[in-house]
Amino acid sequence: MQWVKVLGGLVGASALLGLGIILGRFAIPKGADAPAPGVSVSQDLDLEILETVMKQLDASKIRENLRELSREPHLASSPRDEALAQLLLHRWRDPESGLDAAEAPTYEALLSFPSRERPNRVAVVGPTGTILFSCRQSEQNLTGEQGGPDVVPPYAAYAPPGTPQGLLVYANRGTEEDFMELQTQGIRLEGTIALTRYGGTGRGAKAVNAAKHGVAGVLVYTDPADINDGHSSASQTFPNSWRLPPSGVERGSYYEYFGDPLTPYLPANPSSFRLNPDTVPGFPPIPTQPIGFEDAKILLCNLQGTLAPAAWQGALGCDYKLGPGFRPDGDFPAERYFWVNVSVHNRLELRNSSNVLGIIRGAVEPDRYVLYGNHRDSWVHGAVDPSSGTAVLLELSRVLGTLLKKGTWRPRRSIVFASWGAEEFGLIGSTEFTEEFFSKLQERTVAYINVDISVFANATLRAQGTPPVQSVIFSAAKQIPAPGLDGLSIYDNWIRYFNRSSTAYGLVPSLGSLGAGSDYAPFIHFLGISSMDIAYTYDRSKTSARIYPTYHTAFDTFGYVDKFVDPGFSSHQAVARTAGSVLLRLSDSLFLPLNVSDYGETLRNFLQAAQRDLGVLLEQHSISLGPLVTAVEKFEGAAAALGQHVSALQKDTPDPLQVRMLNDQLMLLERTFLNPRAFPEERYYSHVLWAPRTGSVATFPGLANACSRAMNTSLGSAAWAEVQRQLSILVVALEGAAATLRPVADL
Amino acid sequence: MQWVKVLGGLVGASALLGLGIILGRFAIPKGADAPAPGVSVSQDLDLEILETVMKQLDASKIRENLRELSREPHLASSPRDEALAQLLLHRWRDPESGLDAAEAPTYEALLSFPSRERPNRVAVVGPTGTILFSCRQSEQNLTGEQGGPDVVPPYAAYAPPGTPQGLLVYANRGTEEDFMELQTQGIRLEGTIALTRYGGTGRGAKAVNAAKHGVAGVLVYTDPADINDGHSSASQTFPNSWRLPPSGVERGSYYEYFGDPLTPYLPANPSSFRLNPDTVPGFPPIPTQPIGFEDAKILLCNLQGTLAPAAWQGALGCDYKLGPGFRPDGDFPAERYFWVNVSVHNRLELRNSSNVLGIIRGAVEPDRYVLYGNHRDSWVHGAVDPSSGTAVLLELSRVLGTLLKKGTWRPRRSIVFASWGAEEFGLIGSTEFTEEFFSKLQERTVAYINVDISVFANATLRAQGTPPVQSVIFSAAKQIPAPGLDGLSIYDNWIRYFNRSSTAYGLVPSLGSLGAGSDYAPFIHFLGISSMDIAYTYDRSKTSARIYPTYHTAFDTFGYVDKFVDPGFSSHQAVARTAGSVLLRLSDSLFLPLNVSDYGETLRNFLQAAQRDLGVLLEQHSISLGPLVTAVEKFEGAAAALGQHVSALQKDTPDPLQVRMLNDQLMLLERTFLNPRAFPEERYYSHVLWAPRTGSVATFPGLANACSRAMNTSLGSAAWAEVQRQLSILVVALEGAAATLRPVADL
Repeated sequence: MQWVKVLGGLVGASALLGLGIILGRFAIPKGADAPAPGVSVSQDLDLEILETVMKQLDASKIRENLRELSREPHLASSPRDEALAQLLLHRWRDPESGLDAAEAPTYEALLSFPSRERPNRVAVVGPTGTILFSCRQSEQNLTGEQGGPDVVPPYAAYAPPGTPQGLLVYANRGTEEDFMELQTQGIRLEGTIALTRYGGTGRGAKAVNAAKHGVAGVLVYTDPADINDGHSSASQTFPNSWRLPPSGVERGSYYEYFGDPLTPYLPANPSSFRLNPDTVPGFPPIPTQPIGFEDAKILLCNLQGTLAPAAWQGALGCDYKLGPGFRPDGDFPAERYFWVNVSVHNRLELRNSSNVLGIIRGAVEPDRYVLYGNHRDSWVHGAVDPSSGTAVLLELSRVLGTLLKKGTWRPRRSIVFASWGAEEFGLIGSTEFTEEFFSKLQERTVAYINVDISVFANATLRAQGTPPVQSVIFSAAKQIPAPGLDGLSIYDNWIRYFNRSSTAYGLVPSLGSLGAGSDYAPFIHFLGISSMDIAYTYDRSKTSARIYPTYHTAFDTFGYVDKFVDPGFSSHQAVARTAGSVLLRLSDSLFLPLNVSDYGETLRNFLQAAQRDLGVLLEQHSISLGPLVTAVEKFEGAAAALGQHVSALQKDTPDPLQVRMLNDQLMLLERTFLNPRAFPEERYYSHVLWAPRTGSVATFPGLANACSRAMNTSLGSAAWAEVQRQLSILVVALEGAAATLRPVADL
Repeated sequence: MQWVKVLGGLVGASALLGLGIILGRFAIPKGADAPAPGVSVSQDLDLEILETVMKQLDASKIRENLRELSREPHLASSPRDEALAQLLLHRWRDPESGLDAAEAPTYEALLSFPSRERPNRVAVVGPTGTILFSCRQSEQNLTGEQGGPDVVPPYAAYAPPGTPQGLLVYANRGTEEDFMELQTQGIRLEGTIALTRYGGTGRGAKAVNAAKHGVAGVLVYTDPADINDGHSSASQTFPNSWRLPPSGVERGSYYEYFGDPLTPYLPANPSSFRLNPDTVPGFPPIPTQPIGFEDAKILLCNLQGTLAPAAWQGALGCDYKLGPGFRPDGDFPAERYFWVNVSVHNRLELRNSSNVLGIIRGAVEPDRYVLYGNHRDSWVHGAVDPSSGTAVLLELSRVLGTLLKKGTWRPRRSIVFASWGAEEFGLIGSTEFTEEFFSKLQERTVAYINVDISVFANATLRAQGTPPVQSVIFSAAKQIPAPGLDGLSIYDNWIRYFNRSSTAYGLVPSLGSLGAGSDYAPFIHFLGISSMDIAYTYDRSKTSARIYPTYHTAFDTFGYVDKFVDPGFSSHQAVARTAGSVLLRLSDSLFLPLNVSDYGETLRNFLQAAQRDLGVLLEQHSISLGPLVTAVEKFEGAAAALGQHVSALQKDTPDPLQVRMLNDQLMLLERTFLNPRAFPEERYYSHVLWAPRTGSVATFPGLANACSRAMNTSLGSAAWAEVQRQLSILVVALEGAAATLRPVADL
């Protein structure tokens, strides 16, 4: 400053000097050691680049990607899965369209497979062992693609081997309430085989609930009422429509947690400590096997006993009865006591599974990461799940890689692309990655973008995420045309399907919250990184299918997508553009487009729900929500003030360090909601706002769960003490969050 | 850059233009919104300012501070303690020499006090209740300062009330081994009163160990052999020397953990959830009372029974026997079965205790905090403990505050001064602060500097800390003259007293490691913030006193310091200069002076110790240290490469964001060693390198403790599995640490 003062005293400093000062100040980056020529510390989102990217994202290239990715089955750790890892590496190392660097690190994880030698079997057998009926052991080969040796037969991953047999009962969706209902009906469950349908609760939970009641084995099927809007005939289903054919079976992981089962909280590296597989919690306790509705119909429609409740009825074309055992006048008439035998020969195996990681190094802030990922492994061909997401990922990395290699563009922050391994077995690749690099990722990650299934259906955008990402998704969606709807933006179309009334903005599209359905789970729940999941999805007025019908079956093929899900691939393109725009905005904007004040609205809604639902109860136990009200108010006040600070800075030409400090506040806010000691029994779940809730009301999970336990147990004062502890944990987290939003040099 | 290119094409651009560019680039900070006039984003440590501060730190002002601070007893939460909080606030709000802002937030913590109405008592009583002898209930009033109503009588804080009586036994230092020895000697401990001496184990541990053997009450005294180099007569002790007088009693907290006992992991705010005091773990299980050696002598020298082992003998001038009970030919001859009665009437009370916080806002990076703290509360006058530290703190804040208010200086980063409350009861003020603001502090704190007792004695500097702070302490110590040693630096003097051979540097002063002895504990162990403790201390060749003799007694007064500890206050001044220089270097240096590669040396030493001590044992159980060796090598490699990167950048004029990114790596390294799930049973201890070790070998605590448990229990494979788990936790932490040191855009 002293130089400047001296200068100020000079009379008639030339215009050239002034120009020089201006140039020196604004045009030359400080620091001769600046990362690359052309880099300015004030580098901001370039709308022309954004427009270029939007234009270059090519639907036909996505289609070609999908064709290649889904050409063969690529079950986790299979040769084809590893070949696809190499394909990704190859693309990301392409000198014309690749990234700065790419690698494929491997973890050694515990997976579960059916035996090739002894296929799993479900049969109706008589007392002497005669087999009267056997369920299919593989899906019908309808398109020539369901038959090869690489199509893994339907199975329940991690279900233990065993050959229970017993009388069949129908247990609806296998919830705790369902089994209680059977008991109420006087049905003795000990030693039975329970036939359940998908939905209502997690896969593994069905076996856990069943085993508590003495059930010996579990069958699971997909009812046409739940997936096909009731339709079930061959002519009405794939390959004649997008619906699930009668032989289709949903595979899936029946493990209750996520991550490699043997190495909780540790990366599954070869040298890592491993639990004894025999004592791992979370595996189904009894043999379990999924079957198609064609076979389920034969079993279910032959049951005797009481008529099942109306809500338990389905679309198999008969009255569902509860059992136990078959009716004497049905398909198995000779002998009343025919049993169902479930033979499961699954094996646990330690397998190598690769993640593929690629990076575009940030020009200005290489130590800030925007992560974009999807899993690579599928159950069979996995055209929709997950290859529709990977096809988009590859197209996005191609377009960005090309701009990068041409020297046209380099993002302000680093972009990391990830192709996760073994997601279908329980988010294993992503979880192990977060376990291995938790410090680095927590310190530096701006956000995680997940695009798993990119297109469930082609009606509308659907997004899930934490509140700070709402604004950036909205910004992206407003500037992209909705496919097939002339002039309507993705945003305008979205709001017609999913919307809510916001106190701050009026009617807006509603963002879903993040459970543990895909690889975002370890990022948000374990690391506290703002995360989102983006897809195109259904018109819910046209179908009530719980998910796209061929989910996790051998019928989820390229032809299925090309013909039924997204002909023309315009919805894929729309997702690529939306996710791509979000990615660029997060990586390139000078000010991080994370609107932290949107968390205030969530907190206020959670608070109101808690007051409405729990207020009276808590008062009865002399527990005041007053401190929580104060904490929410403090958060709202601090967030609003920070918002004004951002606006003021944006109008100016701010110092790069000031922007960095502000961005650190925005980036790290999500971390302040983490408390690894809040729910030690809930593996990985540390986010005090998004941990699992046992109830259906959207409110603070720790508080609500503790209240629910206190009401339902005889623990008395200890349970109410836990309610108070959870309330304090929450208040401290919110007060801490508010403190990080306040001016950084406030005491 | 385009402007520059255009410019490059101009022929004959005038010199003025060039000058303008230079000025614009280097002299004007980027950003019109820059924090304050005169601020440059490249602001670095100003050696002239440093020299000014060193010169202005005034020994006589420290002396005056100490006189005022120690004028009255200021037990935690007492009126005088709160008055001193106001004094600090007043100083820090002074318009001429204060800080930018100061506050005194209060916590409501569970403290423990003796009853005024029913003083604690230790007496020898006969079967009919006749009292033959009573120990003093307060110290002798030798200087007129030991008598007032504010001198709290000696007591064991948190020891439960009760009036056990029984035969006296002598139990040496009250370790588990000591009680085992008594059992081996055939002494029945059930119902006895155990007389123990300070040292060897924690205060509370003596009662815990005793209770396990059925002991009914515990007495604790300080043996003249342990504190006075054997001297014990009135003429040889204070006020005639610095030694402990016969009536002096060490008070202290007997709580086994730290932080407010009722609110673990939660700040002790009024609304916070509190445990039931009756079920809090960590309080002494049986009544306990400390006494002076004058009284201990009467009890101990009258014991009958076996002669205690040689190592148990002390300097009370008699043979120490084990008991139980008194010898018939001693001072209590009439009756062999005189009992010792211990009457404890301590009460637990919820009390308000203040921290005082003051801030100097950083000019360039206000969101980076250098914390400097000490506790304020004492047991009695606390001239040495803690006021010698607070006297230095106030002088340092005066000198810096004056420069600040004059406009001469403002640090690059924010400096936060803290005066903690209720440290003596278990680091309560500092722990509650870290619990309340853990996110903000973890994200932003560069380092924590603790100066509690600033001068134990005036021989040499003594520093404890984590490896990254070694270099900055060395830099400071090299430039400050050692008091009274013409021409010798503090560093040169230090190395004569404490030194070690470093593989990297040769002979250097040795830094101690941080336990939980003062307020740095929650910062390093709970938050993973690089911390240090700085003091002047003894010539160990001249005294073997376990601590300065009047520690926690009523004799720790201003006169004691002024006459015996540091006449002239030059050691206080030396500590003020050292800590002040460290503070300025951390707050003002462009590049953070944290040498992370010094952690490599510690890791290598820990590794070698593990290989030497545990290698064979681990091999016998098929556990390989190979992955640990690899992880240490990776750390060393990454740290060395980062060091070269720092050197290269320092030679240049780096971009401010590049420096910030590098500094974030340096600042956050310590955090990468935290794992809140590593030792869930060790409250607050999450640092995998500095958690408590049960053994004496300096190595990895989790691994060593697990090995020790595996060898000493019958748990078998489960215990060895825990060894493997601890090894993996360690390997992952070190690999993660190495990953954060590598170039930030490496995959």
